[in-house]
Amino acid sequence: MILDKIRQPNDIKKLNPDEYALLAQEIRTFLIRTISENGGHLGSNLGAVELTMALHLSLNLPEDKIIFDVGHQSYTHKLLTGRRDDFVHLRKFHGLSGFPKHRESDCDAFDTGHSSTSLSAGLGLVKARDLKHENHTVISVIGDGALTGGMAYEALNNASKLTTNFIMILNDNNRSISENVGGISRYLQNIRTAEGYQDFKLRLQKMLLRMPQGKAVVDGLKRYKSSIKQLFVPGMFFEDMGITYLGPVDGHDIRAMMKLIKEAKRINHAVLIHVRTKKGRGYAPAERHPARFHGTDPFDIETGLPRKNKEKPGYTDVFSTVMIRLAAKNPRVCAISAAMPDGTGLTRFSKLYPDRFFDVGIAEEHAVTFAAGLSAGGMIPVVAIYSSFLQRAYDQIIHDVCIQKLHVIFAVDRAGIVGADGETHQGIFDLSFLSSIPNMVVAAPKNKWELSDLLKFAAAFDGPMAVRYPRGEACDDLEEYREKVVLGKSEKIYEGRDVALLAVGSMVKTAIKVRENLEKEGISAGLFNARFVKPLDEDMVREAGSCPLIVTMEENVLSGGFGEKVRGCADVLAPDSRIIHVAIPDAYVEHGNVELLKQEIGIDDKSVTERIIKELKEQGRNKADKEK
Amino acid sequence: MILDKIRQPNDIKKLNPDEYALLAQEIRTFLIRTISENGGHLGSNLGAVELTMALHLSLNLPEDKIIFDVGHQSYTHKLLTGRRDDFVHLRKFHGLSGFPKHRESDCDAFDTGHSSTSLSAGLGLVKARDLKHENHTVISVIGDGALTGGMAYEALNNASKLTTNFIMILNDNNRSISENVGGISRYLQNIRTAEGYQDFKLRLQKMLLRMPQGKAVVDGLKRYKSSIKQLFVPGMFFEDMGITYLGPVDGHDIRAMMKLIKEAKRINHAVLIHVRTKKGRGYAPAERHPARFHGTDPFDIETGLPRKNKEKPGYTDVFSTVMIRLAAKNPRVCAISAAMPDGTGLTRFSKLYPDRFFDVGIAEEHAVTFAAGLSAGGMIPVVAIYSSFLQRAYDQIIHDVCIQKLHVIFAVDRAGIVGADGETHQGIFDLSFLSSIPNMVVAAPKNKWELSDLLKFAAAFDGPMAVRYPRGEACDDLEEYREKVVLGKSEKIYEGRDVALLAVGSMVKTAIKVRENLEKEGISAGLFNARFVKPLDEDMVREAGSCPLIVTMEENVLSGGFGEKVRGCADVLAPDSRIIHVAIPDAYVEHGNVELLKQEIGIDDKSVTERIIKELKEQGRNKADKEK
Repeated sequence: MILDKIRQPNDIKKLNPDEYALLAQEIRTFLIRTISENGGHLGSNLGAVELTMALHLSLNLPEDKIIFDVGHQSYTHKLLTGRRDDFVHLRKFHGLSGFPKHRESDCDAFDTGHSSTSLSAGLGLVKARDLKHENHTVISVIGDGALTGGMAYEALNNASKLTTNFIMILNDNNRSISENVGGISRYLQNIRTAEGYQDFKLRLQKMLLRMPQGKAVVDGLKRYKSSIKQLFVPGMFFEDMGITYLGPVDGHDIRAMMKLIKEAKRINHAVLIHVRTKKGRGYAPAERHPARFHGTDPFDIETGLPRKNKEKPGYTDVFSTVMIRLAAKNPRVCAISAAMPDGTGLTRFSKLYPDRFFDVGIAEEHAVTFAAGLSAGGMIPVVAIYSSFLQRAYDQIIHDVCIQKLHVIFAVDRAGIVGADGETHQGIFDLSFLSSIPNMVVAAPKNKWELSDLLKFAAAFDGPMAVRYPRGEACDDLEEYREKVVLGKSEKIYEGRDVALLAVGSMVKTAIKVRENLEKEGISAGLFNARFVKPLDEDMVREAGSCPLIVTMEENVLSGGFGEKVRGCADVLAPDSRIIHVAIPDAYVEHGNVELLKQEIGIDDKSVTERIIKELKEQGRNKADKEK
Repeated sequence: MILDKIRQPNDIKKLNPDEYALLAQEIRTFLIRTISENGGHLGSNLGAVELTMALHLSLNLPEDKIIFDVGHQSYTHKLLTGRRDDFVHLRKFHGLSGFPKHRESDCDAFDTGHSSTSLSAGLGLVKARDLKHENHTVISVIGDGALTGGMAYEALNNASKLTTNFIMILNDNNRSISENVGGISRYLQNIRTAEGYQDFKLRLQKMLLRMPQGKAVVDGLKRYKSSIKQLFVPGMFFEDMGITYLGPVDGHDIRAMMKLIKEAKRINHAVLIHVRTKKGRGYAPAERHPARFHGTDPFDIETGLPRKNKEKPGYTDVFSTVMIRLAAKNPRVCAISAAMPDGTGLTRFSKLYPDRFFDVGIAEEHAVTFAAGLSAGGMIPVVAIYSSFLQRAYDQIIHDVCIQKLHVIFAVDRAGIVGADGETHQGIFDLSFLSSIPNMVVAAPKNKWELSDLLKFAAAFDGPMAVRYPRGEACDDLEEYREKVVLGKSEKIYEGRDVALLAVGSMVKTAIKVRENLEKEGISAGLFNARFVKPLDEDMVREAGSCPLIVTMEENVLSGGFGEKVRGCADVLAPDSRIIHVAIPDAYVEHGNVELLKQEIGIDDKSVTERIIKELKEQGRNKADKEK
């Protein structure tokens, strides 16, 4: 196998050019097999095989720097930099990350995960290089989907000022996860279809020069430099910004790309190479269903079908159904997605209510302020964004939604530990950053029925409200506990004597197990489903104060979260109770199986139970000491 | 006076067109007088007088909607909508806001304050209008500076899909607060200077048609529709996005603008009118010094000079000086500003070290990730951004800086109550959102010497660190307290017996006064300067535990801030103390004099003193009750 010859960075350069095609094929086979077993991002990686090879053939790593936007397309890069053997543990706890990680390899110049950051980071590396009088090449690889994010444009605007080399490769597969939206997409489409264009402009110039007065015309055109450029350059959008445009080039033609990269390296300012690739290339099911194979669970290679079918509906499915019902009942309900109609469960909505569905592209900031505008105009927008991506719109929530107390509903999916995608994607800050905002209401459901009830409550509540729920299967326990939702009121589930468990959302399920575990040890635990983190139910804290120990439980960092809020009023309301917090520690949480990660950070039922037992023993000892 | 005829919305339409010029002049005189007395945004308002008049002459308010980007240019709009008499209280407590406020008038369609939001909000209002089958006009007015912000581009990208009318007015004065930067600025400059362009393209077409084969050329051009458009339309950047471009038009020619607005209203998709205005128009000092008169304190109309000179240097001045010293000592130190080199104090740096200074435009997200790239490349970037604008980059700090633990220094200016700009600009969340981030260090200086010490510490500390300091005069008390900065260590200033005051940054000064007040009442108060909010000094809390009352003091919201962190460990470290928090309540803080606002929300020395005395009395009573 040719792949066997690639043991470390730059090994690919030792190959005979005749071997490139075969290597590409071997890489694809390897990727399909690995991802079919471990899950991961398939489509984008299959699309970027030749592009990555061309980069590695054109550069010296790790001296030269490649920054992969989003980074989920970096598998071939990892293969070519000596990490092949680690792929067995791809996306597993303590195993290879699905994203570039500098700590994994010097060849990963900059960690990515969220969209549209690579141009900004690349520009930073370029400026650092220049200030240190170094000479290496810096290349950012960005997808056309990521170009819908405003940050990328901010960087392009700044790249235009460069007087040294910076190469941006536009990996254009005409999609983000779903289909692309908006002006930039249409514009790229125009370029892609202008195949005969290059010929035409040459013929035009020749023709003009042969004519009487033709030279005057050409001269006239040249006087209007910008105008003539507009006529003769397809990538005017970029040229307008002061960025040289090269391409489009076939992203599966290694030699053509190498040629353009070589040309680009000679340019002493910012240059963009437009590369056209096919998402899922080389694996028919992925070519046919690009959205499904964007990020996939393990699947059967023959059929392309998932290895195990989902048994229970996920929270996203529940959200999906509730949204349809809300929209049917109320014509003011709209839905907004930032390039994730599938992921957030809004595809059905988009088909049934296309007029009231808005996919704004990878543009979370716009999504939120657009929602604010819709609300100011009398609609009830529901913004469905993953927790970690909603971080992008923190200011917009503060500034555009909450100051005006607008009726905008935030459906915060993937809140809590998300698993295999790791530290960039964990949704562990939302309770904190949302709770810090005046006028905001923050809630989380314990199970699928409550998600439905909270969304309905939010639709009727006249003000900003966020409902956060985790990735994966929806809890379908506790159906019998379905107390009417009242703003800022918790739900008491079990009475208890020794310990009061105050749990938020997903942690209610954990708390039930904790309670059972404790019962076996003869410890009586009460359980409150907090429901609202903001406003907090002070009666809950007061009642919990009858137990000597209060345990707050949340899948969120401690700082600014639920636990701190409970403690803030416990002084007065539960003065005789000791309080401990179960929360995400103050550290990033890496990738891996969700249950494993929860054990690792001590928020699984077993760890919590042990901690409580230890705590009670200590309290008992202290009490005994005092009584002595 | 003609202005006397304008008592309510749409009154301007009753004027004779001959009166327009005089009205514009009267408005200018009014604005200059009012702002010279109250302070405010002068340049942008003087530049937008005729534009605003043209809008009011072309629209019906409040049915039609105008959204002013940033909003500080809305004074003429306020004058024309019946708020003239309120201008005596402009920017004062409970008085007229310097920004659009829906609660002030129905004619203020959407509240603004931060940059680049108007297109997103406008699009929302457009979609709401269409879904409700209404017919009014929606116009967003955005400056060329605001176009450097990525959100605006996200909105443009989405506006391209519209099939109904939406008018965007580009108010192009060729500046943001300082000079504009980047590709989009150069591009607009090209359009502005292409005066003879219109003529040329007509001559070219005629000439071509007269030639043999000329028709073939024109036909050929037409076949490549996008290309021919590039030749014949100056606003190709926008046309490429699918947005009709009209202009450029003189922004001081009311009739020309009215004509274009009328034309624009007939278009059934998104249209951009490019209006060229002059910042500061009609007041010579403001035309000459646009940055100084962007936002100004009261000034003398004759000379244009500030009414009272600053007596003491501000924190910004101190930062300015320290940055020069750091840069002189260490060639790795760089500085980044998001369109505010003057405001953040980096102008001197930019002149002395132009290679190491980066003004990235109004682009906070890019600023932070660019800094991360610089740091990954071995530099030490200092990102100077106002607290309320840094909210924009929350995700970039989490995702691009702190996961990789990169050495980026955040100089968080205008932290705390900022005063006259009001709720959109108060810097009251930064301690919370920054403290929630793993690996982040958060500090605040008590006085000017400590700002210097903390910045030097941050430059030597290998990781992300934020130093936050307030607007205005730097505290120059307590020079004698200058203990060496140690990570996570506070500084004990006074010993005390009854109360321990734990104060952050600006609140140390308040705490000194509180301590003096308490002393007069025979209460002994100790004082700690916390210095670090994260990591928190637990020894400080332990030591404070010797007092029966601990008072945390911060100019930040309670949720997720310093107080909650102290309380979090006090259980164990100070179990016998009661804790109360002085912090910003969970509500937006309006505009007005800083001291007044602090009294209003109870964080001034008098309020704090009273609260402490009351608290101690209660404690005393409780104790007495127990002892009975």
